[in-house]
Amino acid sequence: MEKQEDKSVIQQQETGVHGFPLLETIQSPADLRRLPVERLPELCTEIRRFLVKELAANPGHFASSMGAVELTVALHYVFDTPYDRLVWDVGHQAYGHKLLTGRRDKFHTNRTFGGISGFPSPEESEYDTFTAGHASNSISAALGFAIASHLKKEDPERHVVAVVGDASISGGLAFEGINNVANNPNNLLIVLNDNDMSIDHNVGALNSYLTHIHTSKSYNAFRFATYKAMKKLGLVNDRRRGIITRFSNSLKAVISNEQNIFEGLNIRYFGPFDGHDVIRLVKVLNDIKNMTGPRILHLRTVKGKGYQPAEQDPACWHAPGKFDPETGQRHVDSNKLKYQDVFGQELLKLAEQNEDVVAITAAMPTGTSVSTMLDKLPERVFDVGISEGHAVTFAGGLAKEGMRPVVAIYSSFLQRGYDHIIHDVAIQKLPVIFAIDRAGLVGEDGVTHHGLFDIAYMRSVPGMIIAAPRDNEYLRSLMLTAYHYKEGPFAIRYPRGASKLPDTETPGKVLPIGKGEKLHDGDRIALLALGPMVEIALSAADKLAEEGISASVYDMIYAKPLDTDILSELTSRNIPIVTLEDGTIVGGLGSAVDDYVTGVETTSKVHKIGVKDNFVTHGSIAQLQQLCGMDVDSVVKTVRDIIRDSKANSSVE
Amino acid sequence: MEKQEDKSVIQQQETGVHGFPLLETIQSPADLRRLPVERLPELCTEIRRFLVKELAANPGHFASSMGAVELTVALHYVFDTPYDRLVWDVGHQAYGHKLLTGRRDKFHTNRTFGGISGFPSPEESEYDTFTAGHASNSISAALGFAIASHLKKEDPERHVVAVVGDASISGGLAFEGINNVANNPNNLLIVLNDNDMSIDHNVGALNSYLTHIHTSKSYNAFRFATYKAMKKLGLVNDRRRGIITRFSNSLKAVISNEQNIFEGLNIRYFGPFDGHDVIRLVKVLNDIKNMTGPRILHLRTVKGKGYQPAEQDPACWHAPGKFDPETGQRHVDSNKLKYQDVFGQELLKLAEQNEDVVAITAAMPTGTSVSTMLDKLPERVFDVGISEGHAVTFAGGLAKEGMRPVVAIYSSFLQRGYDHIIHDVAIQKLPVIFAIDRAGLVGEDGVTHHGLFDIAYMRSVPGMIIAAPRDNEYLRSLMLTAYHYKEGPFAIRYPRGASKLPDTETPGKVLPIGKGEKLHDGDRIALLALGPMVEIALSAADKLAEEGISASVYDMIYAKPLDTDILSELTSRNIPIVTLEDGTIVGGLGSAVDDYVTGVETTSKVHKIGVKDNFVTHGSIAQLQQLCGMDVDSVVKTVRDIIRDSKANSSVE
Repeated sequence: MEKQEDKSVIQQQETGVHGFPLLETIQSPADLRRLPVERLPELCTEIRRFLVKELAANPGHFASSMGAVELTVALHYVFDTPYDRLVWDVGHQAYGHKLLTGRRDKFHTNRTFGGISGFPSPEESEYDTFTAGHASNSISAALGFAIASHLKKEDPERHVVAVVGDASISGGLAFEGINNVANNPNNLLIVLNDNDMSIDHNVGALNSYLTHIHTSKSYNAFRFATYKAMKKLGLVNDRRRGIITRFSNSLKAVISNEQNIFEGLNIRYFGPFDGHDVIRLVKVLNDIKNMTGPRILHLRTVKGKGYQPAEQDPACWHAPGKFDPETGQRHVDSNKLKYQDVFGQELLKLAEQNEDVVAITAAMPTGTSVSTMLDKLPERVFDVGISEGHAVTFAGGLAKEGMRPVVAIYSSFLQRGYDHIIHDVAIQKLPVIFAIDRAGLVGEDGVTHHGLFDIAYMRSVPGMIIAAPRDNEYLRSLMLTAYHYKEGPFAIRYPRGASKLPDTETPGKVLPIGKGEKLHDGDRIALLALGPMVEIALSAADKLAEEGISASVYDMIYAKPLDTDILSELTSRNIPIVTLEDGTIVGGLGSAVDDYVTGVETTSKVHKIGVKDNFVTHGSIAQLQQLCGMDVDSVVKTVRDIIRDSKANSSVE
Repeated sequence: MEKQEDKSVIQQQETGVHGFPLLETIQSPADLRRLPVERLPELCTEIRRFLVKELAANPGHFASSMGAVELTVALHYVFDTPYDRLVWDVGHQAYGHKLLTGRRDKFHTNRTFGGISGFPSPEESEYDTFTAGHASNSISAALGFAIASHLKKEDPERHVVAVVGDASISGGLAFEGINNVANNPNNLLIVLNDNDMSIDHNVGALNSYLTHIHTSKSYNAFRFATYKAMKKLGLVNDRRRGIITRFSNSLKAVISNEQNIFEGLNIRYFGPFDGHDVIRLVKVLNDIKNMTGPRILHLRTVKGKGYQPAEQDPACWHAPGKFDPETGQRHVDSNKLKYQDVFGQELLKLAEQNEDVVAITAAMPTGTSVSTMLDKLPERVFDVGISEGHAVTFAGGLAKEGMRPVVAIYSSFLQRGYDHIIHDVAIQKLPVIFAIDRAGLVGEDGVTHHGLFDIAYMRSVPGMIIAAPRDNEYLRSLMLTAYHYKEGPFAIRYPRGASKLPDTETPGKVLPIGKGEKLHDGDRIALLALGPMVEIALSAADKLAEEGISASVYDMIYAKPLDTDILSELTSRNIPIVTLEDGTIVGGLGSAVDDYVTGVETTSKVHKIGVKDNFVTHGSIAQLQQLCGMDVDSVVKTVRDIIRDSKANSSVE
């Protein structure tokens, strides 16, 4: 066996993926289902080995998928995918799923430009049933699947399975889904993939009790008998479907102390089971597969399972980057300071100097570097879990009582808090500081994670300040500026990754609100940029100068309020304007400039560089900037074309 | 007594509010707190009488506030408001609160322009602690208050009370709040005002049991002793605050079957109690007032309590309009067909003709007229409760499996589903139809309810179609058009109230996507309007013609995609453009036009009519249109000014 493996590693280097004798026989779940159940543990071992090997070389989300291997194998083994529907909640647990559904040979392209997506993607495979980038959506989507199957009278009615992590299920959306699942005619199975590290022994003791109670045939037979009897008496009415039984009613059932919470919400509960015992999982799934009505299966799993370094430090191994598969040594990229690090340091400094500063993160203390403050001032840092809406409203409450909350949330996740920004912050002009991390193109996480919309959705909110730093120094200054601004909400958006200017020492200074800065002189055309696009505009201006095109460059700093002095000067001189922003051009900085320009007497035209009106795939940020016409060369070409066209026009005139 | 009352009615007609001898003595809650507790029932009776009298003449939300009278009195009696904080969830239960907090004499101005707001409004009174228009936000905001008080080391620490209805608590935001309340050091009291009509006798039986268990001194003493012992042993750690204990952990406590759900989530539960026994309420509140840690008090109330017609039909009496206080006869406004009625009828027709049509409402079957379809085809209508996020994601799931969901949600509430529109619908190009009711200015409900942002927030979503009908006929046509469009999401926005053109018979027709219509010829200036602004533009054009100004009028029909043929023609002729939209001009139709105009060779300028970059107060729609410069006269004046300015400019040139 060992010998064979050695050989196959060599083959793999030459021709692709080999050395996984069982896994290699599986082109689709149909092949999997032909295996005897006894061979599944062996398959699981191969999948783990494969993941270690591949992810060591091509980084991705590691620990979650390692923990979901048996679960993945068992689900595809028991259910008739793709006819039956698997819905993954936050898809980075789904690498095993990708391997079993025809994408093993492409797995080395995971998260790369033109390669497969790091998340389930319906465009990529019929096995990927729904978008799965933002947490907590699987139950609602799966309920839609189940009800569609029911309404279409599909025969057999499809099985629909939602796989939810224990973090995802804490989101309000998951709760709304669960609350609605109970009172609809559906066969939805919710698998709770619970990889919480803190092992609670009470639960262990409960395991066999619940297993006994809930999967025993006699118990279920009793339930059905009761249901039928109640229906006969008119106490249950199938026609009430579509009308939810309100949560309070469900609560009443729960507070009778006779049921667990899911049973109280009218969902049958099974578990918890060991999520790494694949043979038993298959048995349990087969047992509950054909029961009618919604069910929840609670599995306990270990994040990073099967790879010692990851089991020991699952947080670091969530997305470890490249590593040595033998030693578990992670290749830490460089010590280039990231925007998020600068934010974390400055947040701590601000909080040390000002007692009213508090910080809020929605399950991302490390991802946002709020952890820097958490370590030193834990009583003023609040990790609210995957609850972006609550994070914002809670911040509103804190601000209303005189605190200065800093809400650090990724741009695309903050979309979940949009109403809360308007209703619970902006209407009351509360001075909440929004630290919008991962704004703009984020790279490998792709379509669900790019932060493209924040400028647009924030700009229409009355009284909102929207700023973006061009480097570390300006991030610090904007945080100071935001703190000193007390009239209302203040959003600072900054990108994933390292600042181009690695300055770390210059202290921040309070900047004037709504004032941009001219960074480069030029009289033929003006480049108005925001955030990381300033660097690109400056490089483009240098290249253009070599071609004899004199371009001025402005860092607008603010998308709102807009620096109308700059615009007034440019339009009065009829200078053509190019706007550059790291986000959608529909409603963003460029639109703001357009709104100004069409109201004044000028012949200045505006060209908007940024993400056009479409979603963007995954790849490196550089690749995606090129794809979107936002890299230096594209900007140079765009400006060149504008100049040529305007010359052509004026010569016609 | 009766005689006195007769007299006071006459007085009231002359000089204001009289005939309420006890209520009149109360200028603030401090006065209330000087009353002996025995007099509170009398006060409650007066408040009810006052509400009936006032709301019969000046319509508002009736039944909710009637049900909350004792609760309101008891809270202000026991707690030291405004030092202690009351947070009302969905403020239309808060009329009694307004009467007790210095606004009795202004109550006749409720919901009118320049008068008091129909919801708690922090701008209006220090007793109104937080914005309360959208449901489910009170717990999160109140938690912010409680934690701020703790961090500021206020002495005495403020009491913070959130009053939540049983419908509000079903929202995901409320759940996120509850999930976060448990593990923070706060003295938050959540009052669950449960006015569910369906009386569950099990709950009644539980009442005395829970009362006995939970308010008994010995039980609480035991709890405290346990807590202290655990702390001593290091099993509980106060420094862990800020880090949430995950929901799954809470679940584990719950599934041990030893606690009710709130206790499982680490919130002490008291109740249910009769919410109309004010003397007992005072006693219970005093009992639990000074306990530490979060608590929930469950009160059972009757919507419309004390007014027979409302108790019998609380849904109709939620906001009954004017009525005869003696007979309970409601003055139904007129039988003018509303947009929502046309939507309801057409939805039913569409569903009868097409089996794939399903409809979703978030707790608003009557408000959206989805009830029309619900009555006939209940199996294809889903009322998901106050769960706008789930509504959208669920629709995504249904659409993914080939159904054609119509999601009918008010514009301002759909803000809660913004991420879900992007992530669960638009990325997958799913053909979900968004029926956006109450788009634009909604009138008396005011700042939290105006639907001002939907064009802007929808426009930046790639692939979204955004349309608005100018009358009933076009609403039907757009619904048919949306149904025939299968490439992605399609939003139709329409206002509150009646269409100006009461046509009801003309069958709808499928319209071309992204094509507007010229409705009025003119060559001096062009008015580009959307939805109800078309009518205003046409009237303005007529008036302008009388002044010799020839204005063309276009119904753009679509905000996205924009009809660039119209724009191309106008800009090539250098015609000045005025856009008219019933929403914010920041990012809306006007911005879309701006985005086009700055990219072409033209001297056309664009003037945007709509809501400027600010929030809008309450009042009649006509008053608010005037306030915002959106009524016919304002449009005429704006156009006149534009023409004059352009003449001045050209004469200078």
